[in-house]
Amino acid sequence: MPTLETSRTKTGQVFQPPEGLRILTLGGLGEIGMNCMVLEYQDEILVIDCGLLFSDLEHFGVEFVIPDFSYLVERKEKIKGMIFTHGHEDHVGALAFALKAGIRAPIYASTFTTLLIRERLKEHGLESACEIRTFKMRDTLKFKHFTVKTESVNHSIVDSAALFIQTPVGNVVHTGDFKMDAQPFYGQELDRRAFGAFGDQGVLLLMSDSTNVERHTHSLSESVIYQKFEQLFAAAEGLTVVSMFASNVARMGQVFEVAKKLDKKIALSGRSMEQNVRLGMDAGYLKDAHAQIISLADLDDYPRNKVIVLSTGSQGEWRSSLARIAHDEHPYVKLQEGDLVMMSSKFIPGNEKAIGRMINDLFKQGAEVLYEAIHDIHTSGHATQPELREMIELVRPKYFIPIHGEYRHLVHHAKLARDTGMTDEQVLIAVNGDVIEVSADRCEIVDHIDEPRVLIEGREGNDVSKLVLKDRRQLGEKGVVFALMVRNRDSRRIISGPEIIVKGLVNESIEGWLIEEAGALAKKIINKYDQQIARREPVMDLQEEVRVELRRFFNANIGNKPVVLPIILDV
Amino acid sequence: MPTLETSRTKTGQVFQPPEGLRILTLGGLGEIGMNCMVLEYQDEILVIDCGLLFSDLEHFGVEFVIPDFSYLVERKEKIKGMIFTHGHEDHVGALAFALKAGIRAPIYASTFTTLLIRERLKEHGLESACEIRTFKMRDTLKFKHFTVKTESVNHSIVDSAALFIQTPVGNVVHTGDFKMDAQPFYGQELDRRAFGAFGDQGVLLLMSDSTNVERHTHSLSESVIYQKFEQLFAAAEGLTVVSMFASNVARMGQVFEVAKKLDKKIALSGRSMEQNVRLGMDAGYLKDAHAQIISLADLDDYPRNKVIVLSTGSQGEWRSSLARIAHDEHPYVKLQEGDLVMMSSKFIPGNEKAIGRMINDLFKQGAEVLYEAIHDIHTSGHATQPELREMIELVRPKYFIPIHGEYRHLVHHAKLARDTGMTDEQVLIAVNGDVIEVSADRCEIVDHIDEPRVLIEGREGNDVSKLVLKDRRQLGEKGVVFALMVRNRDSRRIISGPEIIVKGLVNESIEGWLIEEAGALAKKIINKYDQQIARREPVMDLQEEVRVELRRFFNANIGNKPVVLPIILDV
Repeated sequence: MPTLETSRTKTGQVFQPPEGLRILTLGGLGEIGMNCMVLEYQDEILVIDCGLLFSDLEHFGVEFVIPDFSYLVERKEKIKGMIFTHGHEDHVGALAFALKAGIRAPIYASTFTTLLIRERLKEHGLESACEIRTFKMRDTLKFKHFTVKTESVNHSIVDSAALFIQTPVGNVVHTGDFKMDAQPFYGQELDRRAFGAFGDQGVLLLMSDSTNVERHTHSLSESVIYQKFEQLFAAAEGLTVVSMFASNVARMGQVFEVAKKLDKKIALSGRSMEQNVRLGMDAGYLKDAHAQIISLADLDDYPRNKVIVLSTGSQGEWRSSLARIAHDEHPYVKLQEGDLVMMSSKFIPGNEKAIGRMINDLFKQGAEVLYEAIHDIHTSGHATQPELREMIELVRPKYFIPIHGEYRHLVHHAKLARDTGMTDEQVLIAVNGDVIEVSADRCEIVDHIDEPRVLIEGREGNDVSKLVLKDRRQLGEKGVVFALMVRNRDSRRIISGPEIIVKGLVNESIEGWLIEEAGALAKKIINKYDQQIARREPVMDLQEEVRVELRRFFNANIGNKPVVLPIILDV
Repeated sequence: MPTLETSRTKTGQVFQPPEGLRILTLGGLGEIGMNCMVLEYQDEILVIDCGLLFSDLEHFGVEFVIPDFSYLVERKEKIKGMIFTHGHEDHVGALAFALKAGIRAPIYASTFTTLLIRERLKEHGLESACEIRTFKMRDTLKFKHFTVKTESVNHSIVDSAALFIQTPVGNVVHTGDFKMDAQPFYGQELDRRAFGAFGDQGVLLLMSDSTNVERHTHSLSESVIYQKFEQLFAAAEGLTVVSMFASNVARMGQVFEVAKKLDKKIALSGRSMEQNVRLGMDAGYLKDAHAQIISLADLDDYPRNKVIVLSTGSQGEWRSSLARIAHDEHPYVKLQEGDLVMMSSKFIPGNEKAIGRMINDLFKQGAEVLYEAIHDIHTSGHATQPELREMIELVRPKYFIPIHGEYRHLVHHAKLARDTGMTDEQVLIAVNGDVIEVSADRCEIVDHIDEPRVLIEGREGNDVSKLVLKDRRQLGEKGVVFALMVRNRDSRRIISGPEIIVKGLVNESIEGWLIEEAGALAKKIINKYDQQIARREPVMDLQEEVRVELRRFFNANIGNKPVVLPIILDV
């Protein structure tokens, strides 16, 4: 069976070796998700992040999208390191697929990021397929042409890094995902002096997170959430359920600390919640959490208002812990009047409908449900306009490329950079696949790779081709009709059929009628064909004629052209 | 061919004739969309609104959802009127289907609503299928048991009405969709005295719009939009494109008036935009607009900054005018640097992704794009908390039922009613299908019809059954595999096949290998079956065996179980 690697389309493009520094983004520019950037200088390539994007084509069996690694596979000997800024899925989630494609290079990641990567690789049976070199903040990673210094930033996951990169053409800053939080729960506020000091050395290029550029006011600090938790947990009369991204260890830390103050226990619900609490402890966070955790099975041993359930499922995912609670299908957590559900997370665009349905179902269980739209129980991990402006002003780069955003975010971030005084020539909007060349006095797009992305069926699954996606779309929207005929191999005459088989066609009450009429119509065509053979006339293309006529028939009768597949079997 | 009516499931329930006033909602309670309410007293039924819901199952061929009219069909002689509060699709869009189901009753609608209804019925060839009695505001509609007075409200479509309904058990207020706008562009502010005066007469039951109950601050007035238009149109250096719901005649009116002040011309893009401008004029709005309208074909005859294009497509609909502009596929409107696109409408939940993609594409054409998230160029047509509270306080009902909202909106609206001093017994949360009985001292749910909704393929299409939806879901997600075998009718032995045909399966590069292996596997099963026949042993269920084994094979090799259909043809 072919491997993922060989089934992948190749770039098919011949590139000149880069003159200066080449930057190629395989993901994250023109979309939010699947961040992956290639830095190439002469015989050396560094990869920054290797993430996936959750697909909105899940009804066509596509679970997620990953970068097309062809460019990297074709140059795999040059890859000297893969550096991860933090552990979110849109930054680490495609690593296993890169490894499956044959890419091998030392992996550099912070402590918590390392733990998350190891878990992901274990799921794919790839834990020994690569060497992970865990870095601390302000470590220096030395390569032949590149020197990378890691710098701590605030974000919605612990151990997030920005990268200060010294290259032969000049210094480059890659912010990763970041915000500036004056009072983060774990760690310190982003160190403006460090960014300023690197700026003082002269920065050729800044690449900065654009996700929240449309927000005008400074992002809320995590400490705001702390106060809100304190107030709501204290007032809770029944059970409290808090859902959040399982990787948000700092948010969890706040729940644990506030719960401790109020003498409440914590029960964990959802596999990834249990996993991330364990990893958080392993990484040195969530100290003493052990003493607070109780088993879900023991929930009834405590007064209802003395327990907080930390749950996965903040995006309304089917079969997630919170969804099961909402449908009253959770083995331990049964909601009742007076209980409180707090959704301490963003509603990711595209998930609103599913989340909305889940919220309605939680209300139907009698609980009160709080969410960001009506309560400050979540804050974003991404910098807003004032912070983004400050970043540009600290680093004072010669060139600026907005990264991590949909096209409109990149446009707004570019505008913001020009508002700080940068000229049109200094600000470059690039999208996935753009090949950028950077030297001391030049930063421009010189080439482009078309759509460097691959649709993936599932963690273990194969990639879904465009043609198959088109077929699935048709099948799913309109259903399928088979028309089977058996032909005598010698006489060429149809000796059985047509047998009409339909699947996914309108409704049962008219199906019988449709099959009968379609069969009669096909029979007529067969008879015409049969007469042509009998008269030794040139015969029509029977299959094509049946296909065209049946599609016409269905369109006329149900206003819908299903996939029609006429098949002739010779005996 | 069976009609829509006979293919519809029947309620199959036997109801006692109502003792007091029976209220049954077939849509709009527990969801936003397909509003349809039945008021029944003894031998008389009034229907309020008959709308549709745009489906989020469009990838399974379901374009929209309508109420299941079985309850009404079974009692069609009792229906004495269908009253429409306003002309939005979620209030009038299912009328044609009600008529097709055999429901006949005089239709009561305001001027603009009448015009919209007529257009919809014309599309279905049903313009003469019913009698429309156009009402003015404060008209009184007399029925045997009911007397209905129409009262003007502010909403995002002109000629919107609330209904004051006198019934034998007491007075009922149905707000329709409404807001309180101190400065609407057309018409007057909602007349609080009229609601208060009806309240003075004693109101048994208030049913009020819950859509925006989660918003705390008073809704913005349309006049705010007017100022914003003035400022942005005046500053425009290039072409201005404004998209909005085509039915929002008052919003259009503002565009026309501001454009006139600034000596700008208006071009209409999109069939429904042209249609609604015409209907708006017919209803007495958009006076003198004719003089301002130019043909799209003449766009180039005017300076770019002297033209405003009014366009459909505010929801990112595929093939809409604005989507074609975004993809540079519009025959007349080509965007360039300096042009401005204003999306003067809400992003309906579920459409965010499509709208987001369109906005990105508009930016790629070089235009600046403004939307509600970043500019006040839209205001909702629904009342927020302060207005909703005021409505309850004006009407002072004995009982309250929140309508027009998802379940969480109904819960929040019920809470708001209790905050005004109503008791738990006075506030009833009901959902679609609930049969409510109301008398002078009682308002409660006495019965329930399960899921009174029907999935529809398209305007001309049939209803899609649950089973077919399940099939389509499987086909769309996983594809389909046919295994064809030809059997000798007499010997019962397989004489040809298996022929394996696949559609929508993973990708082409491994398809050949899969077909070959699946064929070999089926061949093995056929051989075993053949040996059983030869030995005159009892034979296995060949079809079922092939189905099970092939599904297992595909699951093992591509991690995916497609629909497998083994077929045996006898010759």
